[in-house]
Amino acid sequence: MPVIRAIEVLDVRFPTSLELDGSDAMHKDGDYSAAYVIVTTDDETLAGYGLTFTIGRGTDLVVAAARSQAQMLIGMDVDTMLADMGSVYRTLTSDTQLRWLGPEKGVVHISLAAVLNAAWDLVARRAGKPLWRLLAEMSPHDLAAVADLRYVSDALTRDEAEAILSALEPTKSQRIAHLEEVGYPCYTTSPGWLGYDDEKLRRLCGEAVAAGFSYIKLKVGADLDDDRRRCAITREAIGPDRNLMLDANQVWDVPQAIEWVKALAEFKPLWIEEPTSPDDILGHATIRQAVAPVGVATGEHGHNRVMFKQLLQAKAIDFCQIDSCRLASINEILTVLLLAAKFDVPVCPHAGGVGLCELVQHLAIFDYVAVSGSLDGRVAEYVDHLHENFVDPCVVKDAAYVVPTSPGYSARMHDASLARFSFPDGGYWTERASAETPVDLLGTP
Amino acid sequence: MPVIRAIEVLDVRFPTSLELDGSDAMHKDGDYSAAYVIVTTDDETLAGYGLTFTIGRGTDLVVAAARSQAQMLIGMDVDTMLADMGSVYRTLTSDTQLRWLGPEKGVVHISLAAVLNAAWDLVARRAGKPLWRLLAEMSPHDLAAVADLRYVSDALTRDEAEAILSALEPTKSQRIAHLEEVGYPCYTTSPGWLGYDDEKLRRLCGEAVAAGFSYIKLKVGADLDDDRRRCAITREAIGPDRNLMLDANQVWDVPQAIEWVKALAEFKPLWIEEPTSPDDILGHATIRQAVAPVGVATGEHGHNRVMFKQLLQAKAIDFCQIDSCRLASINEILTVLLLAAKFDVPVCPHAGGVGLCELVQHLAIFDYVAVSGSLDGRVAEYVDHLHENFVDPCVVKDAAYVVPTSPGYSARMHDASLARFSFPDGGYWTERASAETPVDLLGTP
Repeated sequence: MPVIRAIEVLDVRFPTSLELDGSDAMHKDGDYSAAYVIVTTDDETLAGYGLTFTIGRGTDLVVAAARSQAQMLIGMDVDTMLADMGSVYRTLTSDTQLRWLGPEKGVVHISLAAVLNAAWDLVARRAGKPLWRLLAEMSPHDLAAVADLRYVSDALTRDEAEAILSALEPTKSQRIAHLEEVGYPCYTTSPGWLGYDDEKLRRLCGEAVAAGFSYIKLKVGADLDDDRRRCAITREAIGPDRNLMLDANQVWDVPQAIEWVKALAEFKPLWIEEPTSPDDILGHATIRQAVAPVGVATGEHGHNRVMFKQLLQAKAIDFCQIDSCRLASINEILTVLLLAAKFDVPVCPHAGGVGLCELVQHLAIFDYVAVSGSLDGRVAEYVDHLHENFVDPCVVKDAAYVVPTSPGYSARMHDASLARFSFPDGGYWTERASAETPVDLLGTP
Repeated sequence: MPVIRAIEVLDVRFPTSLELDGSDAMHKDGDYSAAYVIVTTDDETLAGYGLTFTIGRGTDLVVAAARSQAQMLIGMDVDTMLADMGSVYRTLTSDTQLRWLGPEKGVVHISLAAVLNAAWDLVARRAGKPLWRLLAEMSPHDLAAVADLRYVSDALTRDEAEAILSALEPTKSQRIAHLEEVGYPCYTTSPGWLGYDDEKLRRLCGEAVAAGFSYIKLKVGADLDDDRRRCAITREAIGPDRNLMLDANQVWDVPQAIEWVKALAEFKPLWIEEPTSPDDILGHATIRQAVAPVGVATGEHGHNRVMFKQLLQAKAIDFCQIDSCRLASINEILTVLLLAAKFDVPVCPHAGGVGLCELVQHLAIFDYVAVSGSLDGRVAEYVDHLHENFVDPCVVKDAAYVVPTSPGYSARMHDASLARFSFPDGGYWTERASAETPVDLLGTP
């Protein structure tokens, strides 16, 4: 019955560059940001909220793209959407003039993620369920109908997709019960930003261990001597049995990646993440062969399902790191979860930023309950930043995401946060602009 | 001495969808468009003009991105730029906040192509040479310094790049003389758009043969029976000895591509172009193995040098189709030309659209003169649309591009064309808007 009546898309930016939260070898000064979509209906108690994550300048481009794409939702009946989110996806991806600007990548794809994330939030709220549960309760047939299987049939047919889902159907409730008891395991990246000094690194590693984390991730790739020293500090702080992961954020060429990772191998990292260009499938495969037993992880910049298909076909990765805001929401993420299940590679979602943790907890839980059926080698990222801006923030207890219970996809921000951090007119940014030199034409100073 | 003082970026759209020019299996109603960059200096006789090609809606996004990126050029000295276009490229690609929106793909990459195309046009005008000649006269060392070799060193080192260029150095003038005599060979796509009826196809094929073309390309992929009939008409019209190429514009999955191309093999196509997702390197390799001796061509949507590197490493293509507006101008195109030369795959540039022919003639000529040194298997695309809008339009004579002699990169449009087709305020669009139903929120009606 409820019908979508209006769309609002906001440019929201948090000044994280001031504290070097989020600093890595490629992104030294990101301001964690979001293109934030609000879908309202003629039922004033029902709205949908979604976002895609960005790091500052250019968020305005994503907002403009999302605003165009979201117009296609106006007039849609929410119950009809709920019954057929495959059609909603096909409608939103049907504009071939916009397609030219990707296709299926870059600004017009991540803006689509924001719009579709809001649409999925909306239908889950309408159903009165957290999104992971809405998905987990769908039939294998209906799930396969939602997944975008275009361009992947050489690796996964619709029948295979349904078979993977059907095999887990009878035992879903046991896995839900298990997660409701212990949560979904996560790791922390909070200690390891590249801009933090040794003392802060050591202190935060200690705090992470005290909080129960047994997986800790460190940014590397700017300077090898620094990396060796920081790895030593971290290994000392976390002990020999906990897991250390390394993240290079794409700074290396393939030969350099191999050399550098070998020089850090003595610290026994579980994985090296984003060792080179995210587009370099064959490069990742080469690196993986050379640096084993260190695993290779990538995917936060994997721009669509075709890239993940190939990473799996080429045996290029040990850990598949989907992103909730770069892939085109559930319709494309589900395809990647199915591919990973077929190729028997664990999915360890990328999170952090702003809102990513809120979103990926649903994906990790759904993956375990309905797609992979396994927790082996699985651990979702967690970063302790900016959760205070969310109405239903994720909750981590004993190094595990507590299973969400509120309806929706958890991405709704507080009105007060939107008022303060909307760019450039929110309270924070107008105060800052009047306090210092004028904001330049490109965006944040 | 001259210094860049101002940047203007225009949204220019031509209503090609009315005539179904440019219609293919994926893009049924494109309005050929451009994000068009004008760089002005304090010398009023010196300006640079560049563009990236789009097909309608969303051009505004590319314009906004280009406007941001081009700000970085303001204050640059044109002679300093001319001496070190590698630095200009690195400056324009240094914004890591914008990088997140790709990286190196989609809106922020094609907008960068527009800006850099204008910068290269500017320095070639300053040098008083057509761009192909400016490049051809650079030393191997200087050219290698201009090329973006990041992420390709596993396939091509800087030393190898210089060696490829140095080997051809002594014989450049012979190849220039040859092209000045006979031009650079091209093929035509004008007869083969999917929206044309059989009669128009037959007539245009006859005209192409009469004009001297021995390579003709046909759009396929919507309906197999139609394709078989249209291939038969074309083969009959062009005879057994001329070359027929097919272009599917990404409509197939891998297994379907193989099946469909086999069903058209009797018409002896030289290549099948874009048989599947442009991101599917391994898929193209599979298709190539299956459909030989039909060749595989792709690249117009190859979004950066890393994708081309892999297409070559995976032996996925027989013909490498660079695009002048999707790769980040000369700095990245040069890398792909060098990679193709090393892997011994002929480069056959994609053109058509608006302005692409004007641009790619420089690339094809430079490739022959200085990088590949060969014309074997090389033929550049030519489409006879919209050239009347350019100040220095490309000239095709006896199925070959006549070597350009005017300074610059040939992308400058007539002021009258800009005034008429600027969107949404140009004369054509305001007349059309008042003549029919209002233009909708998304862009063109």
